[in-house]
Amino acid sequence: MIQVNPHYAKLQSSYLFSEIARKVEEYRSAHPDSEIIRLGIGDVTLALPPSITAAFRDAVEEMGSDAGFHGYGPEQGYAFLREAIAEGDFGSRGINIAPDEIFISDGAKCDTGNIQELFATDIRVGVPDPVYPVYVDTNVMAGRTGAYDNGRFEGLSYFVANAENNFIPSPPESGQDTVDLIYLCFPNNPTGATASKEQLAAWVEYAQAHNSLILFDAAYEAYVRDPELPSSIYEIPGAEKVAVEFRSFSKTAGFTGTRCAYTVVPRACTAYDQTGAAVSVRELWNRRHTTKFNGVSYPVQKAAAACFTETGREELRHMTDYYLLNAGLIRTAIESFGYSCVGGVNSPYVWINCRGDSWAFFDRALERAGVVITPGTGFGPAGEGYVRISAFNHRDKVEQALERLTQAFEQ
Amino acid sequence: MIQVNPHYAKLQSSYLFSEIARKVEEYRSAHPDSEIIRLGIGDVTLALPPSITAAFRDAVEEMGSDAGFHGYGPEQGYAFLREAIAEGDFGSRGINIAPDEIFISDGAKCDTGNIQELFATDIRVGVPDPVYPVYVDTNVMAGRTGAYDNGRFEGLSYFVANAENNFIPSPPESGQDTVDLIYLCFPNNPTGATASKEQLAAWVEYAQAHNSLILFDAAYEAYVRDPELPSSIYEIPGAEKVAVEFRSFSKTAGFTGTRCAYTVVPRACTAYDQTGAAVSVRELWNRRHTTKFNGVSYPVQKAAAACFTETGREELRHMTDYYLLNAGLIRTAIESFGYSCVGGVNSPYVWINCRGDSWAFFDRALERAGVVITPGTGFGPAGEGYVRISAFNHRDKVEQALERLTQAFEQ
Repeated sequence: MIQVNPHYAKLQSSYLFSEIARKVEEYRSAHPDSEIIRLGIGDVTLALPPSITAAFRDAVEEMGSDAGFHGYGPEQGYAFLREAIAEGDFGSRGINIAPDEIFISDGAKCDTGNIQELFATDIRVGVPDPVYPVYVDTNVMAGRTGAYDNGRFEGLSYFVANAENNFIPSPPESGQDTVDLIYLCFPNNPTGATASKEQLAAWVEYAQAHNSLILFDAAYEAYVRDPELPSSIYEIPGAEKVAVEFRSFSKTAGFTGTRCAYTVVPRACTAYDQTGAAVSVRELWNRRHTTKFNGVSYPVQKAAAACFTETGREELRHMTDYYLLNAGLIRTAIESFGYSCVGGVNSPYVWINCRGDSWAFFDRALERAGVVITPGTGFGPAGEGYVRISAFNHRDKVEQALERLTQAFEQ
Repeated sequence: MIQVNPHYAKLQSSYLFSEIARKVEEYRSAHPDSEIIRLGIGDVTLALPPSITAAFRDAVEEMGSDAGFHGYGPEQGYAFLREAIAEGDFGSRGINIAPDEIFISDGAKCDTGNIQELFATDIRVGVPDPVYPVYVDTNVMAGRTGAYDNGRFEGLSYFVANAENNFIPSPPESGQDTVDLIYLCFPNNPTGATASKEQLAAWVEYAQAHNSLILFDAAYEAYVRDPELPSSIYEIPGAEKVAVEFRSFSKTAGFTGTRCAYTVVPRACTAYDQTGAAVSVRELWNRRHTTKFNGVSYPVQKAAAACFTETGREELRHMTDYYLLNAGLIRTAIESFGYSCVGGVNSPYVWINCRGDSWAFFDRALERAGVVITPGTGFGPAGEGYVRISAFNHRDKVEQALERLTQAFEQ
């Protein structure tokens, strides 16, 4: 008899987005002439910039000629892209990452979801709360948790981010469970909070002291403008031994529908076998990557490489500046309504303390203003009392949404 | 301490391809002026056809305009592609598959590698021998096997394909271990053998009788020309309850470097929980797909959809005809040397009984003719004594390779 993985039954249904969809549909039926403005999910809206579109198109043309055709590429990605990243995202900022420590993939969601496979099932996993649900669900599927109870899975450690700690959790203290695998995300999704070098250094120190591994999700690093803030965990000395970093072209270059990301696994990064002997995490990831993945589309990799030309860089800077200006407008408006916020600076998300029920605030924004946002409770218990507003939309939509919200909140 | 998945240590290093690379490099150094012709790995060489390139390029242009930009798409794939497949690959052939039973992905390697996650770790898995290594290695990583011993993993069942059964293994007989999860591939990689409807029906009957699940890899179905041969397992009545089918645009449309594939999981397809209650495999796959994957690049999906226009179909037929003619030339030549073969008809692979050591035959082809082929032993113990020749190359290269081999084998 073909028996199913019993752990899938522990997963909670994705109530959040189906409930949002249901409410939006209800509103649409009731207000057929009203345009709904979406500031909910974190999906970019600006077109691919010209130089990147041109590189993408040229590579497609190559594929249409016998001379330029490309079949299977290296599973880990083409050297031209790995080299461009090593220099453009790290070397130029004084961080020493070799091209063969960079693994190209079709998405940070895939990579952050898949990497847990490299580790034993009885390790202790720690995740932020509020959290990007992929970190949790993939560990549930793998059997690293017990049952779901009141917003939490038994057996997981949760790092609560709230106003008390300025939305930057500290590592577990002595007396608390030791965490072996640590998920961190800065600039954070959903809170938009950014960690200082000192705050990241505390996590690196914790990982060193406990032989833990940090999975650092830096999908939003392109929004960091403050030169004092780290955009990579490898700015912290010693992090290369205890941290894997995930990056994406999705929010950096508008690639949510084009699909390209990468994961950095330094040669020094170490895990341990049952005898306590060191094992190279890079070797394990390389084995997984070559066994279960067949590389990213060649034209997509050429498009991604175009992000590192001088023109490409300027175009992307313009794009992230545009969304950051949206974020600033949102934060200013929300604060003017008397709500306190985090994010919206060095981050495309604004996390609002709505002083009450997440869903009530969501309903108010939808029903009074036709604006869709995301209730914080969908990201975990610590998200209750908060909502997330995303800066990913066209300026005129954002301005229109803020005008409508202003009217709604003056009522 | 971050402990690694102990099962990775059981994996065998990919000796085959590294050894081939080493030998080729050695030959190249010794013969710097001789052009090496590769008929080894199954990678296509013809350019993307014009109508498909045009659709790909147009979709890239869309992405470069605000009006045509596409962000995140549905994880399962766009309706336009799922509908085109449902009609073009199934409905038009009298097979009833709904668009929402089709899941678009970036590769059949990923899908055949990932699907085992849906099932319990203590099920019995059966794989062909010789075998596409992904089926085996992904189950080793998941802990469904014991140690490696003499070409086999303990705890796996192997379906041996050899001259005695015309390279089509039959289901296990009573007295043999009952297999819960069954990997089949027809037209087969590496043997090129094709199964008849009666032969597939025997497997479907076995799965029905034992509540097993068949994973049917049909990546090479576009090469089937004999109307009596099934190109889908769903041509067998009842298969929709016991089989998942994997398809790819790689060998069908030259997408090895473009990356698009799909998996069919019918609503009727059933697995069981620990109490023996039925569970929908489609629901489980949908959950995995939406949790760990973020959809295929929009321009790639548009290119794939162009395969189903009348022009696209003609172009692809021309492409597969071309490779099939290569395969026929290879088979004829090899038989003229006095070797018996399977495949090369309704399949792009020719599997040659080399009457001796696989590597010795490989060495002879490389050293005497500068032609790279694949030793069968790399696909499992039952591959010893065989080599695989791939028809994926340009006609002039294939003709030149055969001329050189003719001279080599006349020596």
